[in-house]
Amino acid sequence: MRAGTQRMQAAVWHGARDVRIAEVGVPTPRPGEVLVEVAYCGICGSDLHEYADGPHAIPVAEPHPGSGATAPLVLGHEFCGTVAALGAAVTGLAIGDRVAVEPNYRCGTCPRCRAGEYNICRHFGFAGLMGNGGMAEYAAIPAYMAHRLPEAVSLEQAALFEPASVALHALRRAGAPPETMAVVGLGPVGLLTVRLAAERKARRIIAVDVSPVRLERAAGLGATDLIDAGREEAAGERIRELTGGEGVDVAFEAVGSEISLGTCLAATRRGGRVVLVGLAPKASLDTFALVNNEQSIVASVGYRDTYPELIRLVAEQGLDLTPVVTSTIGLDALITHGFEALMDGPGNQVKILVDPAAHRREAPLLPSPADRTEILT
Amino acid sequence: MRAGTQRMQAAVWHGARDVRIAEVGVPTPRPGEVLVEVAYCGICGSDLHEYADGPHAIPVAEPHPGSGATAPLVLGHEFCGTVAALGAAVTGLAIGDRVAVEPNYRCGTCPRCRAGEYNICRHFGFAGLMGNGGMAEYAAIPAYMAHRLPEAVSLEQAALFEPASVALHALRRAGAPPETMAVVGLGPVGLLTVRLAAERKARRIIAVDVSPVRLERAAGLGATDLIDAGREEAAGERIRELTGGEGVDVAFEAVGSEISLGTCLAATRRGGRVVLVGLAPKASLDTFALVNNEQSIVASVGYRDTYPELIRLVAEQGLDLTPVVTSTIGLDALITHGFEALMDGPGNQVKILVDPAAHRREAPLLPSPADRTEILT
Repeated sequence: MRAGTQRMQAAVWHGARDVRIAEVGVPTPRPGEVLVEVAYCGICGSDLHEYADGPHAIPVAEPHPGSGATAPLVLGHEFCGTVAALGAAVTGLAIGDRVAVEPNYRCGTCPRCRAGEYNICRHFGFAGLMGNGGMAEYAAIPAYMAHRLPEAVSLEQAALFEPASVALHALRRAGAPPETMAVVGLGPVGLLTVRLAAERKARRIIAVDVSPVRLERAAGLGATDLIDAGREEAAGERIRELTGGEGVDVAFEAVGSEISLGTCLAATRRGGRVVLVGLAPKASLDTFALVNNEQSIVASVGYRDTYPELIRLVAEQGLDLTPVVTSTIGLDALITHGFEALMDGPGNQVKILVDPAAHRREAPLLPSPADRTEILT
Repeated sequence: MRAGTQRMQAAVWHGARDVRIAEVGVPTPRPGEVLVEVAYCGICGSDLHEYADGPHAIPVAEPHPGSGATAPLVLGHEFCGTVAALGAAVTGLAIGDRVAVEPNYRCGTCPRCRAGEYNICRHFGFAGLMGNGGMAEYAAIPAYMAHRLPEAVSLEQAALFEPASVALHALRRAGAPPETMAVVGLGPVGLLTVRLAAERKARRIIAVDVSPVRLERAAGLGATDLIDAGREEAAGERIRELTGGEGVDVAFEAVGSEISLGTCLAATRRGGRVVLVGLAPKASLDTFALVNNEQSIVASVGYRDTYPELIRLVAEQGLDLTPVVTSTIGLDALITHGFEALMDGPGNQVKILVDPAAHRREAPLLPSPADRTEILT
């Protein structure tokens, strides 16, 4: 990372089980970039994977084409904050703006980008995995990643826009809004899928997980039926029963396992759709049944054009995403109360937010945003 | 089958390798049925399967709920002809009307039927597989199966509406009309998919098969590129090359094999769609790649609401489906020049039509349609 004269704390990935909470230079925004003072950065399952046995997505040999970076780099792609400085040639943003960060690199020129499908850009990547991210006091990001927040949207809500975007994109990939649906796997994305489906007035939202804690949260977020897959066998058949033998219009696979995909297919009606959000490595498929039931398996990866809708839902419809947050920690506690807590036990934690400035609440490192320009640009 | 006093020739399935060309009674149309004097009945791959090692779809123990029939029954579901008699309570059809037969039973009351998706009705079935069909001089069918043909549509074209419907439905299941596409497997349905895609002005239609004869036919029907999968390995990669490294918008799997599904997935661009028309028993899937490429696998079974569009395309746009026909035979030749010819050698035959009255062209069994009512109703 580019070191400035100011110093800050950051969580830097060096290797598996080697994420260091270190003091590094505050980055200087390059032309087209903005510096964001990070308010919150959520911990994602992919951060956990990088910590536990990475690298998976983190570039170690070749620089990622979107970021130009290789490890070591700052983790964290679910973040929001306040614009602290502007690089050259940035328009439409001002110092002090509160922003949600949509952390995706995109080339802008490949066929998918030209079609507006930048989530499947050939150079797609995430700040915080393929480049420096938001588990730090400050992050320099391309200005196109920053979505300015209106007054009515708090940074606590904006901290969840990234996982909520995954859920919203998955719902869009379901096609026509389903009347009846199942969500198999109640991690943050599964729970947010339940929440956003309830917002869209799905009539039946059947939530499936092995964790009673997560099932209880799903009920609070709008699930109409709960299935504890650890206690009930054949969750797919149970879902069919709950829908009068027909099966649901759409099932969301949010675990990433062959068994869950099987549950989803068994749960889905003829002509229905399974949306794959989880990343199962492989799966064996009964294609004969798939064809005869005229089902579809539709993959959903990342998101596109979701932030404006989330801003609108929170600002105008009072959508509250924060019930998925189970704790907020400082950077110092990232390993012990973040990564290890999430890996320990079945689902007692859901979404943990990191507040990178928690350690210096009484002594801010930099002047308040209004006075900050001359120091950092 | 219901025997009348008049006799006719029919191909009756009794068991595997036991299809008998027999003289049976001309059926009497029940209330709501019409009697069709069959002009042509195409041989479908599923007829072959029933002949070779059935029963697969043919009911032998329990009567099919759509037809009330069990074997032995008259084969053949790709047929058209002339209305020869009307059962009670039939409106909108008259004796002498030329009709294409859409041979699908449907209950009309299940959730899918009520949604208009009668191809996935819970009691879905085919006249000619689950009930008596069109490999006979006459067939009694529910009146809702009969689509009256305008002057401009010949019975030779109508004889192909059933397999063309499978192709048209598959194209509809592709969503937005693809600009670039691949058809893997050039049986009748694959070839008709090529033809209908050309009608819809797809820019690039890449046809893949192991049979040079079928590839040549595909070229004649509008394919822009041909890949002989028997000579070229890695057809999927070759398709990517032909599309500038991107892959096609949509690939149609019209073989029914795991290998072809793999070819289709490798051939399809990020965000693209594989339409499954073939009936592979099982397939192992790289779900990780599927998700990261945000691809979809969309099954297509049968068809719905296709006959009116096919009638319009033939009548108004001059669509010609007949180049897929490689021979027309009499019922007597069904086994030798029909089933055995199709099973013998790779793709020298494509679509074979049966003309059930060929044996008595000089001596019609019944009076001409205009005088026929009193004899049969």
